[in-house]
Amino acid sequence: MNYSMISYVLGWIVLIESIFMTLPCVVSAVYSEKQGAWYLVVLLIAAAIGGLRILKKPKKTNYYAKEGFVIVALSWIIISIIGALPLTLSGDIPNYLDALFETASGFTTTGASILTDVEALSRTGLFWRSFTHWVGGMGVIVFLLIILPIFGGRNMSLMQAESPGPTVEKLVPHIKDTARILYGIYFVLTFLEFIFLVLFKAPVFDALTISFGTAGTGGFAIKNDSIGGYSNAIQNITTLFMILFGINFSFYFYIISRKLKKAFNIEEIKWYLGIILSSVLIITLNINISIKHIFTSLRYAFFQVGSIITTTGFATTDFNNWPTLSRTILLILMFVGACAGSTGGGIKVSRIVLLFKYGLNEIKSIVNPKTVNIVHLGKDAVSKPVLQRITVYFSIYIFTLVASILLISLDNKDLVTSFTSVAATLNNIGPGLNEVGPTGNYALFSPFSKIVLIFDMIVGRLELFPMFVLIFHRLWKKT
Amino acid sequence: MNYSMISYVLGWIVLIESIFMTLPCVVSAVYSEKQGAWYLVVLLIAAAIGGLRILKKPKKTNYYAKEGFVIVALSWIIISIIGALPLTLSGDIPNYLDALFETASGFTTTGASILTDVEALSRTGLFWRSFTHWVGGMGVIVFLLIILPIFGGRNMSLMQAESPGPTVEKLVPHIKDTARILYGIYFVLTFLEFIFLVLFKAPVFDALTISFGTAGTGGFAIKNDSIGGYSNAIQNITTLFMILFGINFSFYFYIISRKLKKAFNIEEIKWYLGIILSSVLIITLNINISIKHIFTSLRYAFFQVGSIITTTGFATTDFNNWPTLSRTILLILMFVGACAGSTGGGIKVSRIVLLFKYGLNEIKSIVNPKTVNIVHLGKDAVSKPVLQRITVYFSIYIFTLVASILLISLDNKDLVTSFTSVAATLNNIGPGLNEVGPTGNYALFSPFSKIVLIFDMIVGRLELFPMFVLIFHRLWKKT
Repeated sequence: MNYSMISYVLGWIVLIESIFMTLPCVVSAVYSEKQGAWYLVVLLIAAAIGGLRILKKPKKTNYYAKEGFVIVALSWIIISIIGALPLTLSGDIPNYLDALFETASGFTTTGASILTDVEALSRTGLFWRSFTHWVGGMGVIVFLLIILPIFGGRNMSLMQAESPGPTVEKLVPHIKDTARILYGIYFVLTFLEFIFLVLFKAPVFDALTISFGTAGTGGFAIKNDSIGGYSNAIQNITTLFMILFGINFSFYFYIISRKLKKAFNIEEIKWYLGIILSSVLIITLNINISIKHIFTSLRYAFFQVGSIITTTGFATTDFNNWPTLSRTILLILMFVGACAGSTGGGIKVSRIVLLFKYGLNEIKSIVNPKTVNIVHLGKDAVSKPVLQRITVYFSIYIFTLVASILLISLDNKDLVTSFTSVAATLNNIGPGLNEVGPTGNYALFSPFSKIVLIFDMIVGRLELFPMFVLIFHRLWKKT
Repeated sequence: MNYSMISYVLGWIVLIESIFMTLPCVVSAVYSEKQGAWYLVVLLIAAAIGGLRILKKPKKTNYYAKEGFVIVALSWIIISIIGALPLTLSGDIPNYLDALFETASGFTTTGASILTDVEALSRTGLFWRSFTHWVGGMGVIVFLLIILPIFGGRNMSLMQAESPGPTVEKLVPHIKDTARILYGIYFVLTFLEFIFLVLFKAPVFDALTISFGTAGTGGFAIKNDSIGGYSNAIQNITTLFMILFGINFSFYFYIISRKLKKAFNIEEIKWYLGIILSSVLIITLNINISIKHIFTSLRYAFFQVGSIITTTGFATTDFNNWPTLSRTILLILMFVGACAGSTGGGIKVSRIVLLFKYGLNEIKSIVNPKTVNIVHLGKDAVSKPVLQRITVYFSIYIFTLVASILLISLDNKDLVTSFTSVAATLNNIGPGLNEVGPTGNYALFSPFSKIVLIFDMIVGRLELFPMFVLIFHRLWKKT
């Protein structure tokens, strides 16, 4: 284990977070709030610690996948721990564990909240909370790759460890340029949403925080009724952008590169849109039984399906009251998640599609044992090792889910609350059903359960392996 | 596809079922009930049809795994269809779909019932219902293998298709002898339980039906309160035998063969007993909070854990009222299931253990990429193809589960009822939670949902592949 390299990179991470914290300071100044002072204090201390650490470069800069995973896992734990400090110090969230829950929920783009009254927070606090979504959506390591030239050719492993989905494509030969392009697309899309929202008369502060929440597929809102109080136009713009941020970013890269045919041939996106359309259709018809106004039903269905499959978690209505069919579909979408290589969470559409095709293939091979069956995604044949890794990923995922539900059940909440609280955090969604539904929150859980759910959020955002490597690497140190 | 061979074997299956039906006729005579007449009618017609079919031997008797799966799937569908007839004709269950549900539930050893008042049934009907459990526990094909010498060396595939678990060991060189040994152990264990129950003062008819229900890990009882009304001694004997029938039958074979060391070194059994003991411990402490009598709590916990993990489904108390922790454990045990090569259902302990080890292995290989990690079960290294097949099995299993829940949700029952009704049928348990809990039943579902659940019971009992091969084999007929 190259410990000096690990601590060097972590020094950078702390420094970057302190730079990010200048923004809430500015917001605080604009709104003449005093909370900003605490962000300044934390910022200065973090900058000092991070700055001192990176002064001494490590002798050996080479590292392996193992170190990459440990770096990523520790980075996300540290940014949450530091990011939570000003929220508690400024008095916005007096309980530090609650602040940690909220910050981890922010960075991991979960959007699960322990706040019973969001509107009571300072503008500074609200901004920071939403901004963590934006940072977490694309990832801090990816950001580091842009500004830091010291990493060698192995950067890919770091980026893969942080980015969602079974495969992260190198869009261009240099990893640094790939990271830059991704952040570029991310920035432009966020900016576009912000402009649209302002054009349709959203207040600037609201437009900014909604854009952060949408871009990172996070879901923190600054109103107690989430997005429900805004105009239909604002809701529909949000729906559209949620779905856009759930698309594999390679799509936008191909569009920019004028490889239109390649862009529109990404199989995962076809499935993603197909699932969205069929879910919207069924839910619209299902909820219209009681709503009795087809366009209202359509708007609700479209918003909620977009919000859940992209794992954003905004709400415009209390879907807790929807019929079982609609709730079951939402529950399934929670697990499906968005496209790989997007900012969304969940298992990811491509993994689900591949698991399904692999399963069919196995049945096919019993029917025709002599023919060689190959699983394809788009035009590409998917190799056995990749398929195998996805199935193993799926098993570890289910084990994590079940173990977490078991631990949460100590709180003696009803089964649906217990199950969906884990589903909503592990898949980085935010709201679940029953007590953690869109009108509920996570304040009701015991400190122990909150820690379990924080763990689930980070495990989910980093797609299992980094956190488990961090936990287990000492176990098999020398075997 | 060797169609003449398929229909020949199915002829035998129909004939065997008609032979089995002589038993309810005897019961009917003993209790002077008139229902037996209908069993005689169905018996004679079935015997005629089956008998005529087997007169003409097929020219080619060779067949492949594909045919094996189709034969097994069709056999189970046909025995359910025929077995349901006398229940409806005799008036015990007037609705044929309900009778089919009950019979499929019987043969697949599920034990889910559509009856609101079990005690209203005739003795003949009750006997047949419980006897289907006993037949289904070990399997009709396995029975066929004993009496039918015509199958060639490929019998193993037929037996594997019907028997639960990832691997069916050839206990002795000849498949026929293996089948005979398995049925021998099965018969002796059932007889032992019957004797014990009678010794502890259970009425003979009750002892017989409880033994059938336990042996097949089925769970049909002849009382409305399942096993709850019997003495503690009878409950404890039932608990013990449920757990014994959930053990891999290789264990008993090794014991008989005096290979004690081999018997006590089966890793799956250690996990199985370990899971039972830890679950009993936690549930006892958890339910004792309100029961406040540790031995009563222990008896309830022991019975219910044994009943659920072996997928039997008897009940002595309404565990619907237990705290969330205990219900969550039971819910997890529903999926875990019993040992492979036992009469129990579920995913099977060995599969779960292997999925877990395979997952750990994947994390290990990131930590130590240079060392070769091999997954072991006991002393045996488990090959990659076997592990792969288990992971694919797991994916197909989850897809089946989710698709079924989606279809059931059309009935607009609460989420827990919807989820556990599928879990309890796919894993061949019987009772679920809420409306399908131990005091509830499956009468509340629509005909469509009942068909879905019947499908799940058979899919679960045959471990997915036979039914899917049956459905899909025409799709890929010539590719």
